[in-house]
Amino acid sequence: MIRKKLNIGLFGFGCVGYGLYEVLEKTPGLKANIKKICVKQRDKLRPLKSEHYIYDKDEILDDPDINVVVELIDDADAAFEIVSAALKKGKAVVTANKKMIAEHFHELLELQKEHQTPLLYEAACCASIPIIRNLEEYYDTDLLESVEGIVNGSTNYILTKIVKENTSFDDALLQAQQNGFAESNPMLDTGGFDAKYKLLILLVHSFGIIVKPEEIFNLGIDRIGQLELKYAKEKGFKIKLIAQAFRNESGNISAFVIPKFIKPEEKLFGVDDEYNGVQTKTSFADTQFFVGKGAGAYPTASAVLSDLSALTYDYRYEYKKFHQKANLQLSESTVVNILLRHNKNAAAELKKKFIDVEEIYLNGEAGYLIGKIELSVIKEIANKTDKSTSIVLC
Amino acid sequence: MIRKKLNIGLFGFGCVGYGLYEVLEKTPGLKANIKKICVKQRDKLRPLKSEHYIYDKDEILDDPDINVVVELIDDADAAFEIVSAALKKGKAVVTANKKMIAEHFHELLELQKEHQTPLLYEAACCASIPIIRNLEEYYDTDLLESVEGIVNGSTNYILTKIVKENTSFDDALLQAQQNGFAESNPMLDTGGFDAKYKLLILLVHSFGIIVKPEEIFNLGIDRIGQLELKYAKEKGFKIKLIAQAFRNESGNISAFVIPKFIKPEEKLFGVDDEYNGVQTKTSFADTQFFVGKGAGAYPTASAVLSDLSALTYDYRYEYKKFHQKANLQLSESTVVNILLRHNKNAAAELKKKFIDVEEIYLNGEAGYLIGKIELSVIKEIANKTDKSTSIVLC
Repeated sequence: MIRKKLNIGLFGFGCVGYGLYEVLEKTPGLKANIKKICVKQRDKLRPLKSEHYIYDKDEILDDPDINVVVELIDDADAAFEIVSAALKKGKAVVTANKKMIAEHFHELLELQKEHQTPLLYEAACCASIPIIRNLEEYYDTDLLESVEGIVNGSTNYILTKIVKENTSFDDALLQAQQNGFAESNPMLDTGGFDAKYKLLILLVHSFGIIVKPEEIFNLGIDRIGQLELKYAKEKGFKIKLIAQAFRNESGNISAFVIPKFIKPEEKLFGVDDEYNGVQTKTSFADTQFFVGKGAGAYPTASAVLSDLSALTYDYRYEYKKFHQKANLQLSESTVVNILLRHNKNAAAELKKKFIDVEEIYLNGEAGYLIGKIELSVIKEIANKTDKSTSIVLC
Repeated sequence: MIRKKLNIGLFGFGCVGYGLYEVLEKTPGLKANIKKICVKQRDKLRPLKSEHYIYDKDEILDDPDINVVVELIDDADAAFEIVSAALKKGKAVVTANKKMIAEHFHELLELQKEHQTPLLYEAACCASIPIIRNLEEYYDTDLLESVEGIVNGSTNYILTKIVKENTSFDDALLQAQQNGFAESNPMLDTGGFDAKYKLLILLVHSFGIIVKPEEIFNLGIDRIGQLELKYAKEKGFKIKLIAQAFRNESGNISAFVIPKFIKPEEKLFGVDDEYNGVQTKTSFADTQFFVGKGAGAYPTASAVLSDLSALTYDYRYEYKKFHQKANLQLSESTVVNILLRHNKNAAAELKKKFIDVEEIYLNGEAGYLIGKIELSVIKEIANKTDKSTSIVLC
């Protein structure tokens, strides 16, 4: 068996880019060589000498020797420009940019098809957990019932710090950023957008559904307040930001990102710090559970490396679930159990929104309602309210 | 994309065979049809009417319409005969028979190569956990440091019952058999042989090493006695039967199956009952952890189903690690920490076997030594002793 030799043009040399450089140095078995590194700022202090860098993207895109482009830059729009140009030029592409992928899924699919060039992005979803390839290769749409998990390492790190060490939200966020776990725009993490982009990718490879980011509801961890944290502590629960997609009562698919109370007996309870964990449920095999580091330079670089290794064997995603045309639709008509924390005076109005209220709590300032509610109503409440109102799935 | 239509000849209709039949009924998306079911005994009570069965294997092997043979019989020798005949006839084969695979790895590899027919066996290792395909596709030999896990559902079920419910070993074994988790010959499970066969398969797909079963040391759970169980209980540990392969100090690979004390903070601690859990460690991405049901009709049938699904896309194992020729060797020269429980009067003699003894315990009848010891010496002690002596890794 002959493995293809990879000549890499690398875009971006931040922590993941440098991580990849180091990992490749220690992987002699992989015939991959970084030929050029394209960076944006000329005057930035960087780990390699200046002769290693180029500043014009066409030096990579127009280089016929370069057969693989690895895109590891921060800016999703610039990334899309680079990735689509590379695919058009017949270069295989490996990217870790979930925002870019989520925002341009249809176009990227078309480009791959039209130019017969592979685009791999295992690093874009749960870093070191090979979840995309598992969903793509291993699970049949018919049998898959749900995919859910902690897919954002940064918020999981923050929530772990808050619960374990009573760190404040702001301090925990700062620590996540210092450790290289967080996006440069923290709202992408804490607002649940990063998790949503990943969920969008999971949806394609699990149920064959391609949607736009705005079609999936996301609620981040930035509304989580003392009352919910106290509630969790008293019950022995943790709060985790969960991305989930499942077959709902109508046979369609519900998909959303909302924080959730996790009980000690649940598998995700033990997934702390920057780890990610994804659980799949199938009709016959019950649950499978995958855990690995979901953020950080080396775990992400390792996933990029695995994609590079796959390219040497001509691997490409076949988008099996999408092509199987199971015709599953995304649907918001599903009922979930939530705890809704609110200002004291909002209780009566919010109570009407529930299908069924099981618990009511009020103190001098605030309160919460626990009960069954439609997903579409959660969305409506979230849109109309601010941090005074917080929603956690039960 | 056109998916191949599968016409299946099924050998064996025990709990996994019938499970597969049921799972296929509920998977309309998979174009797979069981054309013939070959069973051994004519007079056995079976779930389907007698017209569904045939009794002559050649009715399947000589049927040109049948393009896939699924082998789910108990007898490893008969299974090898069927599997090799099918491969020679150009039929793809899916099997769950780890003993057969482990005993004939080289021959099966040759047959696949010579006749260009795929042999898939995800169900043979950890049932519903897609570990073979992950090792095959995702991890590069250079970066993989270790693979370890609970790979035998039956012994894990027994150990869980013993620890949680104070069930006796014999009762727990009986329950495992009644639930369809155990091999018909219990010694295959309790003696650690089944785990060893699986480890042998893992070794091929993780480090590219093909060995004979007798080259891997296995110690089962049948020597575990009250003293070790009491020790575990007092410390809050569990005892699990662990199959492991890792890069040792010399850069070669050590691989063995030995019971181990598992601490609450270890990921495998939570893997109970018939669940399996496998942990991989790579140089850069730290650990990945996979959990799923490792025994039972449906989990095993689901893995068979995934292999069938993969065949519709012309998937086959490429034995990448083996072909990469990293030239890793299996080596017994590694030092491990163990607790060695012994008869009172054997203490002095056994103590000499250790490189370093850290703890000594003695009561009126028995005692234990804790310390560092060479793997080859453990093997020697195990071979020379009976149930009066028990070894658990620390």
